[in-house]
This record gives sequence, C-alpha cells and structure tokens, in this order.
Amino acid sequence: MTHPCYAVLEVVLAGPDEPVPADRVPFWTAFEHESGEVKRVPGFWDGANRYVVRFAPEREGSWTWSTRSEAVGLSGMTGTVTVTAPAPAEHGPVRVAGTFHFAHADGTPFRPVGATVYNWLHQPEDRFAATVDSLAAAGFSKLRFMVFPQAGGYVEHFPKLLPFERGADGRHDVTRPVVAFFQRLDAAVVLLQSRGIQADVLIYNAYDNGRFGLDGLTEAEDAVYLRYLVARLSAYSNVWWSLCNEFDILDRPTARWDAAGELLAATDPHGHLRSIHNWMRLYDYNQPWVTHASLQLGQATEDFGRASLFRDAYRKPVVLDEVKYEGDVPERWGHLTARELVHQFWISAVSGCYASHGESFVLDDGSLHIVEGGLLRGKSPERLGFLRKLLDDVDGDGLDPIDNWWDAAFVAGIPRREYFQYLGRSAPASWTFRLPNTGMGIQLEVGDRFEVDVIDTWNMTIKPAGRIFELTDVQRNDAFAADSEPVQLPEGEALALRVRRVPQPAVAD
Amino acid sequence: MTHPCYAVLEVVLAGPDEPVPADRVPFWTAFEHESGEVKRVPGFWDGANRYVVRFAPEREGSWTWSTRSEAVGLSGMTGTVTVTAPAPAEHGPVRVAGTFHFAHADGTPFRPVGATVYNWLHQPEDRFAATVDSLAAAGFSKLRFMVFPQAGGYVEHFPKLLPFERGADGRHDVTRPVVAFFQRLDAAVVLLQSRGIQADVLIYNAYDNGRFGLDGLTEAEDAVYLRYLVARLSAYSNVWWSLCNEFDILDRPTARWDAAGELLAATDPHGHLRSIHNWMRLYDYNQPWVTHASLQLGQATEDFGRASLFRDAYRKPVVLDEVKYEGDVPERWGHLTARELVHQFWISAVSGCYASHGESFVLDDGSLHIVEGGLLRGKSPERLGFLRKLLDDVDGDGLDPIDNWWDAAFVAGIPRREYFQYLGRSAPASWTFRLPNTGMGIQLEVGDRFEVDVIDTWNMTIKPAGRIFELTDVQRNDAFAADSEPVQLPEGEALALRVRRVPQPAVAD
Repeated sequence: MTHPCYAVLEVVLAGPDEPVPADRVPFWTAFEHESGEVKRVPGFWDGANRYVVRFAPEREGSWTWSTRSEAVGLSGMTGTVTVTAPAPAEHGPVRVAGTFHFAHADGTPFRPVGATVYNWLHQPEDRFAATVDSLAAAGFSKLRFMVFPQAGGYVEHFPKLLPFERGADGRHDVTRPVVAFFQRLDAAVVLLQSRGIQADVLIYNAYDNGRFGLDGLTEAEDAVYLRYLVARLSAYSNVWWSLCNEFDILDRPTARWDAAGELLAATDPHGHLRSIHNWMRLYDYNQPWVTHASLQLGQATEDFGRASLFRDAYRKPVVLDEVKYEGDVPERWGHLTARELVHQFWISAVSGCYASHGESFVLDDGSLHIVEGGLLRGKSPERLGFLRKLLDDVDGDGLDPIDNWWDAAFVAGIPRREYFQYLGRSAPASWTFRLPNTGMGIQLEVGDRFEVDVIDTWNMTIKPAGRIFELTDVQRNDAFAADSEPVQLPEGEALALRVRRVPQPAVAD
Repeated sequence: MTHPCYAVLEVVLAGPDEPVPADRVPFWTAFEHESGEVKRVPGFWDGANRYVVRFAPEREGSWTWSTRSEAVGLSGMTGTVTVTAPAPAEHGPVRVAGTFHFAHADGTPFRPVGATVYNWLHQPEDRFAATVDSLAAAGFSKLRFMVFPQAGGYVEHFPKLLPFERGADGRHDVTRPVVAFFQRLDAAVVLLQSRGIQADVLIYNAYDNGRFGLDGLTEAEDAVYLRYLVARLSAYSNVWWSLCNEFDILDRPTARWDAAGELLAATDPHGHLRSIHNWMRLYDYNQPWVTHASLQLGQATEDFGRASLFRDAYRKPVVLDEVKYEGDVPERWGHLTARELVHQFWISAVSGCYASHGESFVLDDGSLHIVEGGLLRGKSPERLGFLRKLLDDVDGDGLDPIDNWWDAAFVAGIPRREYFQYLGRSAPASWTFRLPNTGMGIQLEVGDRFEVDVIDTWNMTIKPAGRIFELTDVQRNDAFAADSEPVQLPEGEALALRVRRVPQPAVAD
C-alpha cells in the first residue's frame, strides 16, 4: 500500500457494538517510521461499530502501524504503508518559521491573510458553500470559525445539529458525540483544504450566553470534547487550533485556559499551531503551549509603531485576528471603511505581523457576514488579495521591521534583499531613497544596487521606478543613494514602496 | 529593646577569625513575629571576625530572633526586639500595587521618576555626593546605578576599589569580598535613602568588555556574589533589584538570566522589586520572578498608543528605564532635546507607564552624566520634577489608560475620579470637554461634574479653567458635556489637561 506524504491516512476498524464512551480513547495507534520515529495517534468512535484513526505522515518511506486497546476488535491490528512524495501543491501543515512567521512542513512560506465567519459551520448548505467560494475568490488563505454554534444579537439561526447527545438530566453528554455533527465538521475542514484555506478552528465558545448550554460544560467535560476533536481533525494538514474567540468574555480562571492549552499541545500528535484570542485582556502568549499570538487590540493597527511591540514582547508570530470589521453596524468594532481596513492590513504587514478580515454590513436577515457568511460585498477583500500576492512573493521567512528599536519610516523586509515601506494614507509628493540599516547582523554596503516599485494599495497597481538606485553612503542606521533623484509619487493615498536588491553589474576591466 | 518598623535592625556577632568563605552563608537568623510569621535572613561577613545580619521588620510588635550556623560563635544566639511605629516619612519598601503601579509597604503610592548614573558608585567622593544633591534637588525619586564599574568609550575613571580579592590565578575570588567596597555600597544606598531616592541596583554588568574581568565570572560565581549582595543590602527599604542593564549585550543563554532571577527571588527575604533591562531584545517579563518590566525600545514613547501595549502584554508595571537621553552625543540614543525628553515622559505617563531620565552632554573630561554623574545641566530635570509632583497628587494607584482598546485621545486616569489628557507637542486652539468611558466597571453618569486644569508641561504652570463641566451625554465609550463651551488653550506647545470630578451640589428642595 502506498500513500502520499501529508495526506490523511485513515484506518477503519470494526469495534464493539456498544460505543466506547468518548471520555476514553477507544484505541491508540503507534505509527513507526523506518527511521525509528514513532507517532502515537488516538483513534475515535465514528458511529455504530466504526472506529477510525487518522494520521498524516510527514516523512516518506515505510511506516508500520499497530493498535492497542482494551476494547474487543480494536487491539493488535497492524499494517504497513509506503509513504511517497506529496501530491502537487500539498505542502503539509503550517508551523512557525523564522521566529515571527509561518511556513508549511516542506518549507514553503505561508503568510496568512485571514477571514472570519464565526457561525459558518451551522449555516444551510447553500450559504455554507457560497461562503467558501466567495472567500477563495477574494484570495483569503485562512478562515476562523467556531465548532460550537453562536448565540447573540445578530444570530437568527438555530442549528439542526449539536455536538453531543443529551443525558437523562438534559445536559450535554460529552461522552456521546453526535457523529453526524462531527462528520460535517470533517467535511468543512476538507472543503477549506480543497480551496487552499487554512481552517482556524475555534474550539470553545464565548458567544453561547447559555442558549445552547455549551459554555456550561465543566473543565473535565471540555477536556473530553477536546480529545475527541483532536483525534478527528488533527490529521488534516490545514488545521490551526484556537482555544476560543474573546476568551475573556467567559468568567473563567486563567489557569483553566492554561491547562486546556497544555492539554491541546500534549494531545495533538501532528503539532498544529495553537493560540487563543482575547477580548479586552490579552492572554500571556509567552506560555510555552502557545505557538503564536492571536490577539486583538483596537488601536494596535491604527498607526505605525504599535503592533510590532507585540512581536518584541512575545518573540512569536503575531496575528491580529480582529482589526475591526468593514461594515456599517454602529458598534465601534464594526464600521470601518474598506480604505481603513486595507490601511490596517498594510500597517500590520510593515509591523511584521499578520491580520484577519471580517465583514459586518447588516444583512437582510439582520445577521452579519462575520456570523453567517455568504457572499462578500465589501471593497476590501480584493485589495487584501492583492496584498496577499505581494506577501507571497517575498523571498524569505517574511517581513521583519529592519530596525525595530527606532525607525521613523517603519521599513520592514529582509536585510540587504527586499524592503517594504508603507507611506500611509497620505503619501508625500516624492520619496528620496533611504533604507534602514540594522547596525548588526547583515549590513548594507556602498555600491549595493536596488530597484524600486511604487505600489498603489487601493488601485492595486505596481509601477516600477524604472531605474537603479545605488548606495553611496551607508551609516549605522541609514543608507542613502545620494546620486539618485527622488521618486515622484502619484497623487492619491495609500502608496507603498517595494525596494529589491538587484545583482551587481559585471565588472569591466 | 525597641526598633522602628521598616528600619534596618543590625545584629553583629563575633565569629571565627578565619572568614567563612562567601560561597557559604556564615549564619542564618530566624526572625519570628509574635503572630508566628518567620523570616529567615542570611548573615554576611563584614571583615575581620565581624559577622552581621540585617533585617527590616514590616510588622509592629514583638520579634524574637535566633541564629544557626556551623561556625563557632555564630550559632545559637538569640534576642528579642519590640518593633514600634515607623519613623515619620518612612513608608517601607516599594512593591507592585494595582497591577501596573507601585506603592510602599504601608500603602503610600510611589510613582518613579527615575535617573540614571551607571558608574556613580565608582566616582571620587565630591562628585559622588554632588550627584545625589543634584538629583534630589531636581526631584528624581529613583537612581539606576551599577555595583560593578563601567568600562567603555566615555569612561576615564578606574576605581580604587573592586568587589573581590584576586586569587593566586589572578581571577576575582568571589569567596573573598572586599569589605571596604561593599561598605561603600551600603553607604551609597543609605545616602540615597536619606534623600528620598530609591536605589535601583544593577547587579551584573554588560559594560565591562573584559577590562575589569567582572563579566567573566562563571554562573556559580555570579550566584555567590548575588547571595552576598542580597545579604548586605536587602534590609534597606529603598532597594530595587535589576539583574543587568542591556543584558543582551552579553552573549549568555536566556536560561542563565532566568536562573539568576529565580535565585534572586528565592534569596531576598524582604521581597524587593526585581527586573532586568534590555538592549535590543526584550526579556520575557511574564516570567514569574519579574515584578515589573524595565525595558527600552527607542520608538515606544515617541508617539501615543505604543508603550501601553507593553502593559497589555505583561500585566505588570512598565518602567521605560531608558527613553534616550538629553544631550549632545552623536549616537541616536544620546541627543534628545529637553523638550523631546519631557514629551516622552508625558507620553509615558498617559500610557500608564513610568520612565527614567539620563543626561548625555559631553563633559570636559569626555565622560557623560549618565556615566559619572555630577551636576545636571539639562533643561528637562526641572520639568520632570514638575511632572512628578502632578503624579504624586494622583488619588489612587496611578494613571491607567481608561480605554486601552481604542481611545484616539489616549486619556489616562482613574475612572470617574481623575483624568489626564496630554495634547502632545502642538496643542489645538481649544478643547471640547470629552471623557472616555470604560463600557464596563466604573461608569460615568449624566450629571457628573468636573473641573479642568490646563497644564503647560514646559513652562510648568497649572491654570484652572475656572468653571464646572457637567456630563449631559454618556455613551458606551465617550461622555460629553454638551452645555459647556470649549476650553480656549494658550498658544504654544506641550499642554496637558487634568480633569477631576467634584462633588455634586447639595440638592435644593
């Protein structure tokens, strides 16, 4: 048997007719690579007497597997599989790269340009599918959505499926998952995968308000659910984990979130990205279980020089998974103009951070796109797709502020290779060539040659300056090309500059 | 025997003529309060056969003490002392208060306005004393200085005293402290105490460059020194601990700093404030041993909305212990104008943070005030003293950004009690009354009445608007006094507004 690298290998076993309760892992499977590396993967119950383990190998070669269980029919099963090269365009799960950035397991950089549809999973089929079409067409590469349904002012929809059977006492019985619910969740993740979108799965829910009762599970019940969820989804390469959106809305001790995060890290055999997203109070993203900071703070991307401080504080990737939304609701988080939202994404980019989009125009049914999805109608998504292409073209881990200590121009990039300077919403008439120098590490040198592109972030144009800028003066923190005339800039707002080094000319004798 | 609370109780014992090496604590003293509370305090060798333990009780009442040692004459000594009310103006050591601020042990708030003279301890007596006179006259309330001497470009001075005897191999022998060196250090801390200045003691030194060899101690040697230092100084109520200035200049693994910080926290029986200060790379101030973030990042106080993000990230007091210096050296950290420096202190204040001053005019001997001290000559100290008085008058823990999520005016204060808004270096012609509302916690109410002072931060004047502003419109995030005319502001720069609530008028029948 052969199987492509990074794809989901599914082993299906016939187990007991009476389901093993989900507070016990029905069986464990050890996958052993020919090198001796072993992955221990939990199986899960998938309805009737069907038991499944999912594993996504990240190494080519021969893997043997064997199961262990206390349940009849699930123990002592073995097999061998030869893992071959991955399918084209399959790069494996996304992990942290270069301290502040992301890359797939095969090393391909990944720069998230995120979208947000919290209650997507719980929508009718047509809207569910149309949402993904619309996001994929715009170019979004990550979607935040909740496993549990959302209650609240803008929600009209009561889902047909809930994740657990009810016990005799009327409470959710987490030991009896509703398989159809979780099969639908599987399909949602696979659908996103097929469209090149990372699934940023929000595990717990701060927007229940007691309506569905899923915010009333005990810590032990939460853990049972988490283990089941991880067993089902972890093999899908596009999964990211987020413990909760706006976790601090819930009145819970921080230690409970810490413990849930540590459990998640210990449980996931595939090592997906893990974070938690705040409302008013930031989580301590320095916690070892956290792979990246997924935070919101309204002012952080309103101006230069702010969001990058979170990188300095956490030394992890920073994803501003809510920078307020394009829309027209009166709440202050929900009526950005498209221009303002695009501006904030560019501020995020030159801060060395990533951001997520959301749309909050009031829909005919009273809901919002961030809740139920459907077709995007704002003017920002197209511009964010344009930004994504520019970020995809960056030759390196990602954009870092070159001089994070103090650069009034806030230039980000990769030293001596490529730079982005965003001029903000009112660009000057001209720009005189200047690059920040790091004062340490890789240094610019006199004679280095650069080309410059003028980028209109709103009209989505890239215009080369059409000449070469050669460094004449390199100081500790700045480098200049004194022989070059300034670049005349077009009228209008929201311009950016891309400066890329070009090879030295051949030396003439 | 009676002894005032917070003062240093010194027990002197005659011990062995051959000194107990400083890598062993010569004796421990258990101080037991009548309530049963016990403090276990290390003693130290103080020359010849003299052994000392210093303890500053924080509770009135009867304390009994007894010593334990393996050394002849140091074990089994006992005594009793009755601790009485503290001396006037003695408030005890400074600790964290209200998450982001500081207060003395007796609850008196403390708002640091810091000064910096790294090599102060190693100067001739006249300059040593003149430095303190000048700092005290300006109103500084904290001084950062190093125990070890500073080497480097601006330093001409080679101290007479070094902290350790040399071994036969020429290396510093940390088991043999130079008592005269440490007695001088004791006296320095006491001198600051007598002038109302907190001693922010920099324990290790990143500015040695091998000149004195004190940066070449092993981790174990560093620990011996740290224990001796803590045993000597910890009873002085004005001590703060800082592991190092610009620690990341030294090529050491972070784990070594973590371990040193944990040792410090475990060793100090008086629980003084503890931090570490960075150069380019921030320390993880979320570490439990860290009481407050003592950081630098050049741009953090250049504009609004930045420094407060460190509060959000760390949830500890943030002290910007280097915001660049007033002076005239060419390096970018050393040529702020006085106006720029004062501006940055005000930005720090309305960010809910604290800052430290330093002066870097090139002196006749080629040194700088931040290195050797002497008389201050800049124009900022007087203005910082003015700011300190305003901060001292704040009625509460300290200034917090009222709406840290997003307030374009960056108002800080104490909800429904007192507010500061800094208008920056170019104030508008008038200001229309508006306060941020928190949207949670303590809320403003229609009918709340306020008085307004216009503060000129440069000319150091406070001019009351002379009328009452009454709230007519309180929204979730803003409150307005629609019936009040705008406040006309004087021409010039760098104004601030102080808004304080006044009692409601008596209700007329």
